[in-house]
Amino acid sequence: MEASKSVRRHTISVWVDNTPGVLSRVTGLFSGRGFNIESLCVAETMDPSVSRITLVTTGDEFITEQIIKQLRKLINTIKVVDLSELGHVEREMALVTVKAEDKSRAEVLRIADIFRCRVVDVSPNTYTLEITGNHEKIQAVLGLLKNHGIMDEVRSGALAIQRAKKD
Amino acid sequence: MEASKSVRRHTISVWVDNTPGVLSRVTGLFSGRGFNIESLCVAETMDPSVSRITLVTTGDEFITEQIIKQLRKLINTIKVVDLSELGHVEREMALVTVKAEDKSRAEVLRIADIFRCRVVDVSPNTYTLEITGNHEKIQAVLGLLKNHGIMDEVRSGALAIQRAKKD
Repeated sequence: MEASKSVRRHTISVWVDNTPGVLSRVTGLFSGRGFNIESLCVAETMDPSVSRITLVTTGDEFITEQIIKQLRKLINTIKVVDLSELGHVEREMALVTVKAEDKSRAEVLRIADIFRCRVVDVSPNTYTLEITGNHEKIQAVLGLLKNHGIMDEVRSGALAIQRAKKD
Repeated sequence: MEASKSVRRHTISVWVDNTPGVLSRVTGLFSGRGFNIESLCVAETMDPSVSRITLVTTGDEFITEQIIKQLRKLINTIKVVDLSELGHVEREMALVTVKAEDKSRAEVLRIADIFRCRVVDVSPNTYTLEITGNHEKIQAVLGLLKNHGIMDEVRSGALAIQRAKKD
């Protein structure tokens, strides 16, 4: 593919009807253009009939704009906001099971403590930690834990919310 | 639709190639059967060529089994594990912007403190909190914050990891 002039990371919120098939149509718009979705979260909101999708994609500005326009036209779409255009907070969660035997046990707990991770499961040879923070922090903690041996890991991808007005 | 004898909530982990179109095919399997996906998270793993999907669905046992079989047959699927069949830990994250004016400001912080939420954004009239925990905890905190006025909220849906063996 021809190299594009303006490629940017977009974090997009999409409010949709909580009915079968909507997620498939939303993701289909991206794959139809050959766009990869880096991460995506979807869950219900306070109103159970409405789900909110947070998705991250990196691509050509022009095509991203087109996809956003098409998202707005989908029959079950309620609202689309490109949070990258606004002040917003992004947080991710990861669950990671790390080897923690003998000497390394204290060190793994120290890392957990420094990065304010929560221990959500314990076995004689492992700890399972919950890490939250921005993408860089998650990467940093996983980088440190890697030295001890990561047995299993799962990440939420970015969850994002608009910043409140400061005045 | 005819009422089914055995309807259950399933939390499923799917490891897939990190390429465009995979997510759309996975979600398409569910919508094709009229199954709603209650929540879904997808993000890369330590191996950037592999993404891991955590999805929650409630439905007829027989059809769920069929969907899992079809998931395994998808060309870009690496592994499928129905975590509901195994011991596992489930955690969710929510970001919520709540009104916090004058008197209610201290009370909102108290709730945040009791439920170990993190304050991730502050404005003169609002706090934005990060809540993590199981589904019930998230619901409980949101229920309490609702009284103060929720301005905005977004949830990750369930993230799940298998429990380590205890022996």
